[in-house]
Amino acid sequence: MTSSVVNSKFGLAPGSLVYIGPKVAKDTTIKLIEYNEEYHKETLIKDISECRISNDKPFVSWLDVDGIHEPDVIEAVGQLHNIHPLLLEDVMNTRQKPKIEFYNDSYVFVSLKMLYWHDKTGEIDAEHISFFLGSNYVISFQEKRSNDIFRLVIDRIKASVGKTRRNGADYLLVSLVDLIVDYYLEILEKMSERLEELEGLILAAKHKDPINQLYGFKRQLTLMRKYVWPLRDMLSQGLRENSKLINKSTFPYFRDVNDHITNVIDSIDSNRELLTGLIDIHYSTLSSRMNSVMKTLTIYSAIFMPLTFIVGIYGMNFDNMPELRQPNGYFYTLAGMAVLAAGLLFYFRKRGWM
Amino acid sequence: MTSSVVNSKFGLAPGSLVYIGPKVAKDTTIKLIEYNEEYHKETLIKDISECRISNDKPFVSWLDVDGIHEPDVIEAVGQLHNIHPLLLEDVMNTRQKPKIEFYNDSYVFVSLKMLYWHDKTGEIDAEHISFFLGSNYVISFQEKRSNDIFRLVIDRIKASVGKTRRNGADYLLVSLVDLIVDYYLEILEKMSERLEELEGLILAAKHKDPINQLYGFKRQLTLMRKYVWPLRDMLSQGLRENSKLINKSTFPYFRDVNDHITNVIDSIDSNRELLTGLIDIHYSTLSSRMNSVMKTLTIYSAIFMPLTFIVGIYGMNFDNMPELRQPNGYFYTLAGMAVLAAGLLFYFRKRGWM
Amino acid sequence: MTSSVVNSKFGLAPGSLVYIGPKVAKDTTIKLIEYNEEYHKETLIKDISECRISNDKPFVSWLDVDGIHEPDVIEAVGQLHNIHPLLLEDVMNTRQKPKIEFYNDSYVFVSLKMLYWHDKTGEIDAEHISFFLGSNYVISFQEKRSNDIFRLVIDRIKASVGKTRRNGADYLLVSLVDLIVDYYLEILEKMSERLEELEGLILAAKHKDPINQLYGFKRQLTLMRKYVWPLRDMLSQGLRENSKLINKSTFPYFRDVNDHITNVIDSIDSNRELLTGLIDIHYSTLSSRMNSVMKTLTIYSAIFMPLTFIVGIYGMNFDNMPELRQPNGYFYTLAGMAVLAAGLLFYFRKRGWM
Amino acid sequence: MTSSVVNSKFGLAPGSLVYIGPKVAKDTTIKLIEYNEEYHKETLIKDISECRISNDKPFVSWLDVDGIHEPDVIEAVGQLHNIHPLLLEDVMNTRQKPKIEFYNDSYVFVSLKMLYWHDKTGEIDAEHISFFLGSNYVISFQEKRSNDIFRLVIDRIKASVGKTRRNGADYLLVSLVDLIVDYYLEILEKMSERLEELEGLILAAKHKDPINQLYGFKRQLTLMRKYVWPLRDMLSQGLRENSKLINKSTFPYFRDVNDHITNVIDSIDSNRELLTGLIDIHYSTLSSRMNSVMKTLTIYSAIFMPLTFIVGIYGMNFDNMPELRQPNGYFYTLAGMAVLAAGLLFYFRKRGWM
Amino acid sequence: MTSSVVNSKFGLAPGSLVYIGPKVAKDTTIKLIEYNEEYHKETLIKDISECRISNDKPFVSWLDVDGIHEPDVIEAVGQLHNIHPLLLEDVMNTRQKPKIEFYNDSYVFVSLKMLYWHDKTGEIDAEHISFFLGSNYVISFQEKRSNDIFRLVIDRIKASVGKTRRNGADYLLVSLVDLIVDYYLEILEKMSERLEELEGLILAAKHKDPINQLYGFKRQLTLMRKYVWPLRDMLSQGLRENSKLINKSTFPYFRDVNDHITNVIDSIDSNRELLTGLIDIHYSTLSSRMNSVMKTLTIYSAIFMPLTFIVGIYGMNFDNMPELRQPNGYFYTLAGMAVLAAGLLFYFRKRGWM
Repeated sequence: MTSSVVNSKFGLAPGSLVYIGPKVAKDTTIKLIEYNEEYHKETLIKDISECRISNDKPFVSWLDVDGIHEPDVIEAVGQLHNIHPLLLEDVMNTRQKPKIEFYNDSYVFVSLKMLYWHDKTGEIDAEHISFFLGSNYVISFQEKRSNDIFRLVIDRIKASVGKTRRNGADYLLVSLVDLIVDYYLEILEKMSERLEELEGLILAAKHKDPINQLYGFKRQLTLMRKYVWPLRDMLSQGLRENSKLINKSTFPYFRDVNDHITNVIDSIDSNRELLTGLIDIHYSTLSSRMNSVMKTLTIYSAIFMPLTFIVGIYGMNFDNMPELRQPNGYFYTLAGMAVLAAGLLFYFRKRGWM
Repeated sequence: MTSSVVNSKFGLAPGSLVYIGPKVAKDTTIKLIEYNEEYHKETLIKDISECRISNDKPFVSWLDVDGIHEPDVIEAVGQLHNIHPLLLEDVMNTRQKPKIEFYNDSYVFVSLKMLYWHDKTGEIDAEHISFFLGSNYVISFQEKRSNDIFRLVIDRIKASVGKTRRNGADYLLVSLVDLIVDYYLEILEKMSERLEELEGLILAAKHKDPINQLYGFKRQLTLMRKYVWPLRDMLSQGLRENSKLINKSTFPYFRDVNDHITNVIDSIDSNRELLTGLIDIHYSTLSSRMNSVMKTLTIYSAIFMPLTFIVGIYGMNFDNMPELRQPNGYFYTLAGMAVLAAGLLFYFRKRGWM
Repeated sequence: MTSSVVNSKFGLAPGSLVYIGPKVAKDTTIKLIEYNEEYHKETLIKDISECRISNDKPFVSWLDVDGIHEPDVIEAVGQLHNIHPLLLEDVMNTRQKPKIEFYNDSYVFVSLKMLYWHDKTGEIDAEHISFFLGSNYVISFQEKRSNDIFRLVIDRIKASVGKTRRNGADYLLVSLVDLIVDYYLEILEKMSERLEELEGLILAAKHKDPINQLYGFKRQLTLMRKYVWPLRDMLSQGLRENSKLINKSTFPYFRDVNDHITNVIDSIDSNRELLTGLIDIHYSTLSSRMNSVMKTLTIYSAIFMPLTFIVGIYGMNFDNMPELRQPNGYFYTLAGMAVLAAGLLFYFRKRGWM
Repeated sequence: MTSSVVNSKFGLAPGSLVYIGPKVAKDTTIKLIEYNEEYHKETLIKDISECRISNDKPFVSWLDVDGIHEPDVIEAVGQLHNIHPLLLEDVMNTRQKPKIEFYNDSYVFVSLKMLYWHDKTGEIDAEHISFFLGSNYVISFQEKRSNDIFRLVIDRIKASVGKTRRNGADYLLVSLVDLIVDYYLEILEKMSERLEELEGLILAAKHKDPINQLYGFKRQLTLMRKYVWPLRDMLSQGLRENSKLINKSTFPYFRDVNDHITNVIDSIDSNRELLTGLIDIHYSTLSSRMNSVMKTLTIYSAIFMPLTFIVGIYGMNFDNMPELRQPNGYFYTLAGMAVLAAGLLFYFRKRGWM
Repeated sequence: MTSSVVNSKFGLAPGSLVYIGPKVAKDTTIKLIEYNEEYHKETLIKDISECRISNDKPFVSWLDVDGIHEPDVIEAVGQLHNIHPLLLEDVMNTRQKPKIEFYNDSYVFVSLKMLYWHDKTGEIDAEHISFFLGSNYVISFQEKRSNDIFRLVIDRIKASVGKTRRNGADYLLVSLVDLIVDYYLEILEKMSERLEELEGLILAAKHKDPINQLYGFKRQLTLMRKYVWPLRDMLSQGLRENSKLINKSTFPYFRDVNDHITNVIDSIDSNRELLTGLIDIHYSTLSSRMNSVMKTLTIYSAIFMPLTFIVGIYGMNFDNMPELRQPNGYFYTLAGMAVLAAGLLFYFRKRGWM
């Protein structure tokens, strides 16, 4: 899991910019989207020094940095907008857990995870996302991947659908976070479907060894919880801070996202409880099967051991064995053994072993 | 569980009205009940635009919307009464967990679950219920089902039984919530009965594989807890808010409902502990049975293996085996084997294996 | 457990008086005890309308209502003393959990459980007790049972032993609660003795199937905890309220009772941990026994299977088997088998299986 | 555990003095130690009425009461120093859990447990200790035992070693409590050594049935935790109270004792976790052993069953069995069986069963 | 673990200086580093009385004491800088858990653990570190080991790399703590790699008895948690104290370290959960293997027992056994047995046992 991480920052002074995460080959892409109710413009930034955005423009500016693995780029963006180096360090550290930080009403830093669900392996993959919210701008950072998760919102702004164009930068931020959180629910939905299939097999005792799969689910849920759990306090803390950067009218939207996060956590927790239950059932099934195997063995032994002993007796070579000389001795013996076997079978059936 | 849900709102702007829940074919029914101590009127609303209810009428108005799957209807009701779109989104989302929200003394939003118990399957089914409480009106939303859970209260108002007619909209709300919470206790009652039957069978070791059933109970209790737990904080939070919409004289009724909710949660928790105990007993029973099976096998083997060995000896064909020539060798051998078997039986009985 | 409950209040308006609990045939008995340092009088009340007690008498009045199953009686007592109907509902509901409520310095409502221990079954039985404390009166409600738990205090007042006669109604209340809580400790004492006996048997591996008994203990402890746990917060909350009804000089007595309650809870919890440990030991014993059974079987098989095979060889009927023709072949074979058996026994002893 | 307790106070009025604890035959001994930087005197008190100590003497007075089983003695000491009867009740109740109580700046009551470790049985024994701290006196109560735990401090005061002589009564109290808490660490040290030995045996799978011993350890740790846990809050609460009886300069010493208590609790908790881990390992070892026993049995059976069947075939008495007539039939059969056995052994070795 | 500890302080007065920890043979080394933006000097202190550092020098002084086992040295350093004896006691006690303490704006005491990972044994080793922060000095204490963990920071100061030279003593402290905390992450990284290897083996059921190893991991994680957990509250408490010794501009660095600590704890916790899961899988694998062994045994027995019985029948020596006289009896019997064996094999395959 962590073995694929490229760098470590041991021994460096606090605030040193080092990318910590899986290797990335592609270049960083930077987009600038500017909009208000009437105006809309999308620019692809080539020269980083150009992308200075400020609070005194009459429209919302959204700088979307797609790639966090180049220290030069991150540092340039950071210096242009007066961002504390420790926060830039957090932007570049894919192992950073979700958090929110307020810097003196000049900007809010929000860091969280976009999660992807790999349908084949059933594994979850996390992308490190960071936001800076100024009074009328948002700067977003995402890992360079093949897909761009914010495309949907960019298109919504372009097409002027929804309220984004009428509202400020804080509404843009809440829209982006909402998008990410809604995707968590999508993932849980897919997971639940899988889990239900597995549950069906286990309840019907048709799955031979589901423990590895159950364990896989548990691990994914643990991972997910780790990423989602800190969000819970984050947003309510965000509202308590009473920062000038977030309008009171946007508060209900933040509370709404918070509600969704609580739903996600509840869903994760009930799935985890479900898994614990299924593991119990699996063990019970294993025990029952063992019981049934042992009963079969015991019944076989209990029936054939005495019979084999009897035929052994009449296989002895004593000179004087009167039974052997009886004309119907053989048939009497066979009949006796049949009666014995039947009696034993009857006894085991009565004891409930068959 | 979740696979039957129709829609998802991934990618939509926050506050978009989408029904999330099982498919519904029927139309929405809207009833308006108006009453005070002297006056009572029940109307079936056809045209939604007519159903505007306001705070300045001299009676309590209760608008009961039966069906939450038609966005047009919900939006129309919402716009007529100035309800925030995010709350309407919650009204239409059957996966929304219970919550309470205060909107500036203009209205209180309460959302919770009506639970049904299916006697055959032993499963619990949740219906999403929402309320808006104004200073002299209540708007209720319920999923369109075959039964109407509020019928009882409607009839009570009509028949002028109880205090509802003498009291305001806040008392109406508490009556409706009380009705729902009382039904939780009914369900737990029925569950407890079932569980006691199962307990009897398990304690008497008469149930072969109760683990699936126990697991089913556990799942229902987990589900129930998920729906009831948030109610606990909800109501006390409601009282702390000190909203003008709730009279001090109605406070004891809210506290009473809160008490019942605590009872429900306690009952759920003790049932869950009971289940854990029963699972333990079941495993112990399985182990004891296995022990008993293995002992039977071992005793059989321990007795017949030596005997079979002895008869095998005298079945050998050596030319010179003096015992075989003895006239009474056969009988001595039989007697010796009888003594051996008796000795072994005695030994196992002494060791407590029989 | 709950199946013996008579009524349910589903569908009734909040505050409706319905008795919920096991059926009772006997009539309610009402006693009035009046006392101060000089004066003492005990009256049996026949006509309920006579039993109005007020705050302005120069002595403490204690109205003891023995029986809570007759709504008429409860309602009459309640109306005479201006008690809120919701509290009367709690008085009549034996499923109500312990709670304390303050009504505007006019009275305090306290509800808790008297517990009985049935020596034969080892089961705990709860009696629902409620108190109303006014400035110089106490009204107590108890279920109609064969015994009267307050007899002891009534006699103490009569005999003028202890401080009760010198102190006010609040001291009377604390004496009554103390009596009930002390009895919890008595029960735990008896339980502990039983548990120790069982522990001795289990540690010595002398008990064949203690799991049902352990489970029974656990259930009783869970039940007890459910009734005692709420008392903890109750009393300290009572002191925090700073009600005029409770004198500062009685505070140490309340704190003392609170201390005892904490002791009870600690004792319950350590007994529960003890039970968990004993269950572990029981399972370990089961496993050890199984191991020992299996080893016996394996040693038997390992010794007799090769021997039986050897005698089988010399039981074959081939024409040309030179060993059979040797004069001492039989004796050599017997000797060889003895050596083999001894070797195997030695091997198993060395492996620690015997 | 509790069965050795002599008395119970059920039915008595709150504040009645009854000794609850194991029977004691010896008389109470009372010592009075007076000291300041220049002065020191140790007196054995014969007549209790003489031992009145007050706040206005120019030295620290320490009254050490060794024995809490005589109600007369305790009551006399209590009345001389105006101690609340409920606290005297706590002094005499060995089942009282640790607590601290402040009585209006006139005295502080501290109750805790001295613990002893019995090397042979590995069991912990608790002695009930109580302190009253006035502005320049300390009254200590201990159960009458053969040893006097405070001897060390008495000698330190006599020999004028350490700071005790230079400091007030609060420092004396903290020294006494520190002595008791340090002894907890000693006990844990000894326990840890024992546990490590046991751990070594279990990890090497050399211990046949460690479950009883592990359970014994767990029980002792649970007991210890019960006695130490309440101390944690006690002392910090003591500091928060801001009583005039404790000087600010003594605060660091209280915080230091608190630190030690946290260390004790941490150590108890990590030992408990260790125990849980060892129990797991023990079960795993049991299972592995069972697996190994079963494999042995199965391999034996799998090899000898076919061989015995083959020799059985050629032991049949059919007239026409051509193989029997072959001159080398016997040797071919033996060779065939050897090959079969070798093949089976090879197969099981490949499957990893040997 | 604790058995190697040299001393104990039982019976000593609080604040007595005793070294508690493993034996150390080497002498204490003391270094003094002085620096500001222009100036830098490193001195090796021979005479302890020389090393008095004060707040009124125009540069930051860092006194690094390497060795905490000599009471004389520690006492001398403490007296020179007015340090409370109880804190010196903590400096010398390697069992002291991490803590922070503020002494009236004159200095801050911080105590924590440097952890080392032994690659061979997979064990963690703790070194006790303490810091005193004055307004422009830091005194650090470390156990005398072969390596000096602060070398890296000393070199950074010398080479004037990073911000240390531009900032005050508080930044030096945060750099040192950051260094230690970063190393925790390094250790967890290495542990995770090991754990993943082990996970691979267990998931593939290729590890025969991983329980001891899993237990070893768990123990190390428990140990690590014990040392890291208290740090969490420590730093945020440190910031809340609002001491003059820590500049507001250094706050973000403290918060950053706190973030890393939270990451460490989260990582420890998810590793622990992983371990629990692996233990489950291991047990499931054990059970599955047992099941498979038992099935093999049962199938063998079920097939060969009847066959051996049949050949036993025809090995009997009755005079009149018509089958034996049939010319093809032998061949018919062989064929019959082959059919029986095939039938049984088919049956077991159908039941899913093969």
